[in-house]
Amino acid sequence: MSQIILVLNGPNLNMLGLREPAVYGHETLADVEAMAVQSGQELGLSIECRQTNHEGQMIDWIHQARQRVAGIVINPGAWTHTSIAIHDALIACEVPVLEVHISNVHRREEFRHHSFVSKVAVGVIAGFGTHGYKLAISHFAKLLNAKPAI
Amino acid sequence: MSQIILVLNGPNLNMLGLREPAVYGHETLADVEAMAVQSGQELGLSIECRQTNHEGQMIDWIHQARQRVAGIVINPGAWTHTSIAIHDALIACEVPVLEVHISNVHRREEFRHHSFVSKVAVGVIAGFGTHGYKLAISHFAKLLNAKPAI
Amino acid sequence: MSQIILVLNGPNLNMLGLREPAVYGHETLADVEAMAVQSGQELGLSIECRQTNHEGQMIDWIHQARQRVAGIVINPGAWTHTSIAIHDALIACEVPVLEVHISNVHRREEFRHHSFVSKVAVGVIAGFGTHGYKLAISHFAKLLNAKPAI
Amino acid sequence: MSQIILVLNGPNLNMLGLREPAVYGHETLADVEAMAVQSGQELGLSIECRQTNHEGQMIDWIHQARQRVAGIVINPGAWTHTSIAIHDALIACEVPVLEVHISNVHRREEFRHHSFVSKVAVGVIAGFGTHGYKLAISHFAKLLNAKPAI
Amino acid sequence: MSQIILVLNGPNLNMLGLREPAVYGHETLADVEAMAVQSGQELGLSIECRQTNHEGQMIDWIHQARQRVAGIVINPGAWTHTSIAIHDALIACEVPVLEVHISNVHRREEFRHHSFVSKVAVGVIAGFGTHGYKLAISHFAKLLNAKPAI
Amino acid sequence: MSQIILVLNGPNLNMLGLREPAVYGHETLADVEAMAVQSGQELGLSIECRQTNHEGQMIDWIHQARQRVAGIVINPGAWTHTSIAIHDALIACEVPVLEVHISNVHRREEFRHHSFVSKVAVGVIAGFGTHGYKLAISHFAKLLNAKPAI
Amino acid sequence: MSQIILVLNGPNLNMLGLREPAVYGHETLADVEAMAVQSGQELGLSIECRQTNHEGQMIDWIHQARQRVAGIVINPGAWTHTSIAIHDALIACEVPVLEVHISNVHRREEFRHHSFVSKVAVGVIAGFGTHGYKLAISHFAKLLNAKPAI
Amino acid sequence: MSQIILVLNGPNLNMLGLREPAVYGHETLADVEAMAVQSGQELGLSIECRQTNHEGQMIDWIHQARQRVAGIVINPGAWTHTSIAIHDALIACEVPVLEVHISNVHRREEFRHHSFVSKVAVGVIAGFGTHGYKLAISHFAKLLNAKPAI
Amino acid sequence: MSQIILVLNGPNLNMLGLREPAVYGHETLADVEAMAVQSGQELGLSIECRQTNHEGQMIDWIHQARQRVAGIVINPGAWTHTSIAIHDALIACEVPVLEVHISNVHRREEFRHHSFVSKVAVGVIAGFGTHGYKLAISHFAKLLNAKPAI
Amino acid sequence: MSQIILVLNGPNLNMLGLREPAVYGHETLADVEAMAVQSGQELGLSIECRQTNHEGQMIDWIHQARQRVAGIVINPGAWTHTSIAIHDALIACEVPVLEVHISNVHRREEFRHHSFVSKVAVGVIAGFGTHGYKLAISHFAKLLNAKPAI
Amino acid sequence: MSQIILVLNGPNLNMLGLREPAVYGHETLADVEAMAVQSGQELGLSIECRQTNHEGQMIDWIHQARQRVAGIVINPGAWTHTSIAIHDALIACEVPVLEVHISNVHRREEFRHHSFVSKVAVGVIAGFGTHGYKLAISHFAKLLNAKPAI
Amino acid sequence: MSQIILVLNGPNLNMLGLREPAVYGHETLADVEAMAVQSGQELGLSIECRQTNHEGQMIDWIHQARQRVAGIVINPGAWTHTSIAIHDALIACEVPVLEVHISNVHRREEFRHHSFVSKVAVGVIAGFGTHGYKLAISHFAKLLNAKPAI
Repeated sequence: MSQIILVLNGPNLNMLGLREPAVYGHETLADVEAMAVQSGQELGLSIECRQTNHEGQMIDWIHQARQRVAGIVINPGAWTHTSIAIHDALIACEVPVLEVHISNVHRREEFRHHSFVSKVAVGVIAGFGTHGYKLAISHFAKLLNAKPAI
Repeated sequence: MSQIILVLNGPNLNMLGLREPAVYGHETLADVEAMAVQSGQELGLSIECRQTNHEGQMIDWIHQARQRVAGIVINPGAWTHTSIAIHDALIACEVPVLEVHISNVHRREEFRHHSFVSKVAVGVIAGFGTHGYKLAISHFAKLLNAKPAI
Repeated sequence: MSQIILVLNGPNLNMLGLREPAVYGHETLADVEAMAVQSGQELGLSIECRQTNHEGQMIDWIHQARQRVAGIVINPGAWTHTSIAIHDALIACEVPVLEVHISNVHRREEFRHHSFVSKVAVGVIAGFGTHGYKLAISHFAKLLNAKPAI
Repeated sequence: MSQIILVLNGPNLNMLGLREPAVYGHETLADVEAMAVQSGQELGLSIECRQTNHEGQMIDWIHQARQRVAGIVINPGAWTHTSIAIHDALIACEVPVLEVHISNVHRREEFRHHSFVSKVAVGVIAGFGTHGYKLAISHFAKLLNAKPAI
Repeated sequence: MSQIILVLNGPNLNMLGLREPAVYGHETLADVEAMAVQSGQELGLSIECRQTNHEGQMIDWIHQARQRVAGIVINPGAWTHTSIAIHDALIACEVPVLEVHISNVHRREEFRHHSFVSKVAVGVIAGFGTHGYKLAISHFAKLLNAKPAI
Repeated sequence: MSQIILVLNGPNLNMLGLREPAVYGHETLADVEAMAVQSGQELGLSIECRQTNHEGQMIDWIHQARQRVAGIVINPGAWTHTSIAIHDALIACEVPVLEVHISNVHRREEFRHHSFVSKVAVGVIAGFGTHGYKLAISHFAKLLNAKPAI
Repeated sequence: MSQIILVLNGPNLNMLGLREPAVYGHETLADVEAMAVQSGQELGLSIECRQTNHEGQMIDWIHQARQRVAGIVINPGAWTHTSIAIHDALIACEVPVLEVHISNVHRREEFRHHSFVSKVAVGVIAGFGTHGYKLAISHFAKLLNAKPAI
Repeated sequence: MSQIILVLNGPNLNMLGLREPAVYGHETLADVEAMAVQSGQELGLSIECRQTNHEGQMIDWIHQARQRVAGIVINPGAWTHTSIAIHDALIACEVPVLEVHISNVHRREEFRHHSFVSKVAVGVIAGFGTHGYKLAISHFAKLLNAKPAI
Repeated sequence: MSQIILVLNGPNLNMLGLREPAVYGHETLADVEAMAVQSGQELGLSIECRQTNHEGQMIDWIHQARQRVAGIVINPGAWTHTSIAIHDALIACEVPVLEVHISNVHRREEFRHHSFVSKVAVGVIAGFGTHGYKLAISHFAKLLNAKPAI
Repeated sequence: MSQIILVLNGPNLNMLGLREPAVYGHETLADVEAMAVQSGQELGLSIECRQTNHEGQMIDWIHQARQRVAGIVINPGAWTHTSIAIHDALIACEVPVLEVHISNVHRREEFRHHSFVSKVAVGVIAGFGTHGYKLAISHFAKLLNAKPAI
Repeated sequence: MSQIILVLNGPNLNMLGLREPAVYGHETLADVEAMAVQSGQELGLSIECRQTNHEGQMIDWIHQARQRVAGIVINPGAWTHTSIAIHDALIACEVPVLEVHISNVHRREEFRHHSFVSKVAVGVIAGFGTHGYKLAISHFAKLLNAKPAI
Repeated sequence: MSQIILVLNGPNLNMLGLREPAVYGHETLADVEAMAVQSGQELGLSIECRQTNHEGQMIDWIHQARQRVAGIVINPGAWTHTSIAIHDALIACEVPVLEVHISNVHRREEFRHHSFVSKVAVGVIAGFGTHGYKLAISHFAKLLNAKPAI
């Protein structure tokens, strides 16, 4: 019923699959979101997907998730490293959060090694490609089974 | 006449009073804004209140305040620590600024100890709860009496 | 009855108003203390004012305030940035503390940006000029009304 | 044909020429943009100018520039120093970038000395006033002549 | 055939489930390893599990995995943050690595925020509890299906 | 009965007394351990002494001490400054710890000024020579008398 | 004869036992000093105890100790971390020094991890409660027996 | 008449075009200097070009430029990052300075990100290749037209 | 008439000449002060000398020097590196200051390399032994001759 | 007679020559050790070679070398940067040490730029490939000829 | 006889008095050197003065001073902060050194606060204007009288 | 034929053997250079030796070595730590470089621990005394035999 999982993608993730397909593959954000929805169906979860390049929009969505969704899967993109506002919004939302990064951020530039979101997330998964979204959703399925609503 | 004080609240302050009322009290942003307006009335000042989770909106409002308002009371929320753009907007606005934080940010996480806004504010008040807004408004009343328009 | 507020001023604040009156105004420490006492009378609080350039004297006064005063308004001057001993004394005193700075210390030298006192204060006010003392006293009036003795 | 140069200006640059004309001159953003368009005409380039105080808007424009424009001249304003999201958008755009600052940022505050945009720009020009935009456009003219589209 | 996944646990993980069961649960390392083996069976992978408190032993096992196993799932425990030797061993092994942490290390002490292993791992998962091992194994199943041997 | 105190010595402490006796004296590790045992006897405590240059061995001993010994006196030698694994093992052991250093490490190289063990120890004693072991044992005698088993 | 041990306590230690007795116990500074005097008697040492919140007074006492006392036991309180003047006074005094902290300062705030006094002390003991004073005195007894006057 | 622009090149720039022509092109320092002279002719400026690997020589030339030239275009090479002496010479010279770097130094090693020369230059241009010299000269032409001698 | 030079010595300088005369010489603070007075007499200056180990006393003396003395020669001892309060007092005093250190502090411990007093002093002399006081006084004689009272 | 040189190799050096022979060559650790032994024979030195991935084993071997060998050639591998225990063991051993790295560690990751072993070694050689071992042995031959046993 | 004092001036000091005489006065380097020579004559010392903008020249002069001069007065200008080579030359010269700065470098930019020369100088004088040279020479006179040649 | 090895020595190395022969030995730079030449002869290499205290001279020599010499042995002295210009010259020269330090720089002052030259050298040898030059030459002999010209 209220077992909604919100899948949020931050800045530049709308470009997924459009750029250099020979390198990054042809999987677009739409493909990832479809995969997420299907995974949810298999696990009895309702998946809602959103993407924005506007931090204010992201914060608004997080606020609206309060008391409505059972979990948030978020790939904050570049905001991971800079946005205390999203960090604070996630605290105010009082919903469990799983943080996903497609690439292994720890092998990239120094400025990608710190995450404000990790400080408020239950868990973090990085470098598992788009498969990471699916694993995060399956983890919510496990958590929600154990305790009705976290 | 032109004695308007603009009260600006940044990201997540719209959540005030909605979350954990047993802990934070039942005072919502609407309550705080009503209190600010009433304080202004008692002191002969016209109070305008706005809140946004969008940094661009905040910058636009600050620009529009130029040559129109007598002072700005701002609680920049998380942008306090990260937004040079708001810092620059406040300089460009050429209006005196008072910075308010509801909590004592110096007792919280290390990343809340630095403020870009303090560098361009006349004064800063933190940890006085929502009472801080009222004290800031009363300080503008005092400053504006001394010199007609700052 | 026991509703005493102790107003403590640290090193060099005895020089207030004596130096460069054309720049800093003619308001002396005596003037500030008289204003504080009068503010207290209007709010039903008994104000005691003290100033010292001796850290040991300041610590002794803070110790003596324990179980005797309802609140401490302190402008620790330069000790703000260096004195862990005053920080510890304020903890031992177990009385709520408001920290006042006449100037906005965040616009001054880097070494004035860190405060040991802020870590143990309820709130901090800086850059409101000598008006800051009055606002701090009025905040204690509000706090003490809400809860008999903090 | 596709020889479009996109001229992007970030936060607060809409205030150009409005503030303190005795100091900064009377040249407004409109003047700068007109100058840019005219420079382009002389060099056989089509110039498109945009300004925003909204980071998300800037990112959207950069995405839309992909496979459409021949170069981007960007003055990221305060985002220069804070926005990894714009840094990532410029990479995703796969268009050559020239970074312009009106003032010499290296003589200003410490926090203006680091640029995320410089890491993905072909070149950087700072302190040449509004002339810098013109020089950047002329450099694109030179680059585009040498190699049809970079 | 050669589709072996090696599951390595570092120092103190032998204490899992023995300490404070009311807090950490009753799941022991043996339970985790049994779950891993079973997950492997379901996915057609052969799982080998080992734990040691001796860094030299861990390095020896990693060396022996070379050209023999298809992937390594490693929870390096405290060595995550200190052992360059294990970092080097994993490079020398030339086998894809997934790093697992039961807790979200980014919410713990500062000294747990840096990982030498992340620099050589394909991906990292933290804070998913013991479920993280299972997710890592399922990711290897996915990777190995896509390309016969990585 | 279960009033065992475990005295653990880390790397290089087996060299005590063997090297430069004119400088360090002729007291060997065996002498120190004999002194510790005798001190224990006088205080009604059973003393077990072990030394190793292998971190894994040290961790194993600490694990085995769990629910068996009443206190640990540890001189971690160089591991003091580098071993998070021993830090974690001591937490997992849930036994009170006293940290001993023969020399005053704070007067030695900068890299000896930080201790991971101090973060989990009840107390630290440094620079009291081999007498420090005896004082630590006597402190356990005092603690254990006060409360039967900590 | 000249076998005097001076026990010096710095700022706020006069508050010992007065504050939160349910937490810190009822042991006052007077109790600690009495215990120190008695320990001295048992060991044939004459103990002199002093406490001050005035750094200048502490320095004067240290100077007066020169060529008069056999050892100094000092708990410098907050000055531990800030007073180079006491560091210099102890050097000028040319008397062996033992530094005592009641709590384990290494488990407390970061700013308590550095000690100027440790650089000139023979040894340091922290976290042994008030027992630390007694152990320090007993160590002086041992040292003074070995060599008549240090 | 006195409208001389001095073009100064620092260490290793004499190697331009000699090394790896396939990579860096065949343009030598002589070519660059010829281009600069010609640009000056077109703009009515007299261009003087010099290059040295000797810091003392560079300083002497800067001193001699005082009250003789209208502007300095300098590519300080590696001295950019290390030479306070050149920084001071440029101040003493009291002539406007434009700093040129052929490559975008901000994309290179960390130690190339700080410039002592930028602190005393009017503007900086980096990454525009050898075209940067020409753009700097054209900027001087613009500046000198606006105000006879800067 | 008002040509008084105040010679101030900070903590531990009363120990001069008393400690290790074979090393530091037999010159006591009294000798230094006598030398200073005599130097003043030869130069037509009235010298007043004071020493204290109490920071508060030093601040009081500096305040009293305002509008009464023509210059201050100060050796702040250890306070050089720690006392912002003395730094502020010297500013409030509005009298020219010369800072003297007997030893070359730059060859000593790292923590002696920074001076708060240097930021408000006209000049600093270090490592000239007690001769430094005499040279500072002679410099005041020169300055005061040039301009009647600074 | 006692002219033994001990050649010690740390973690992962057993993998030499086994991994990527096209890149690193076919020279194995056995080859290197054979070359070392032969070099020793030519120079009249007895060479003993050992390798381990266990820090404790390395420390034990260093201890056993005391008063038995004339010199140690050590390639500490990753322990170079992390092991204070080996640093201390080498001091305790009182035998001259030469540190060898096959690659030039200064051109590799930042964390390989600091060496604890260099602080106790006579000399360091890096980037000379496996030839470095031979040069180190020949240097011991030279040193031992000059002074019988160092 | 061999009582020569060498007065060395580094880069840009040849510009003294030529630049902004209204601000810096009309005193040129020639004037300063003449004053130094005359001071020497009065004190029975032979003064040799040299200035260079070439670091290599300065090093050569320092080398040549070895075993020939009794002391060096050096104003290293900008090399103060950057030249380890001059630091090493002064050590190799084995002649006592006094370091002079005309301005108080500690009140200037951060990068002027560290001096390599101070680490090898007997003493340092800064902010005494050109008078500092004279005071340094007089100090050598005093030192050389006390001990024939240092 | 073209098998020339250039041996370059930087600042102060001309003082070798002249200073404190009892400490450093009587070996002068001339002796070292003679030894180098002789080593070269034995190995079939032509050795050219140069020393300078002028950075510009060093850079010029490095440039001239391009396409003329087979290898450079350089002891950059103090420039090791400060000269990016020499770092850049060595890159431009495109000749393999071996870096030699007579002493073990890693045991000396902190500022000698970083080398710009190491970043462009094939290998580094430090602390092998003047023997290091000979070993570096022999390494070039080995390298040049393996591959005709590197």
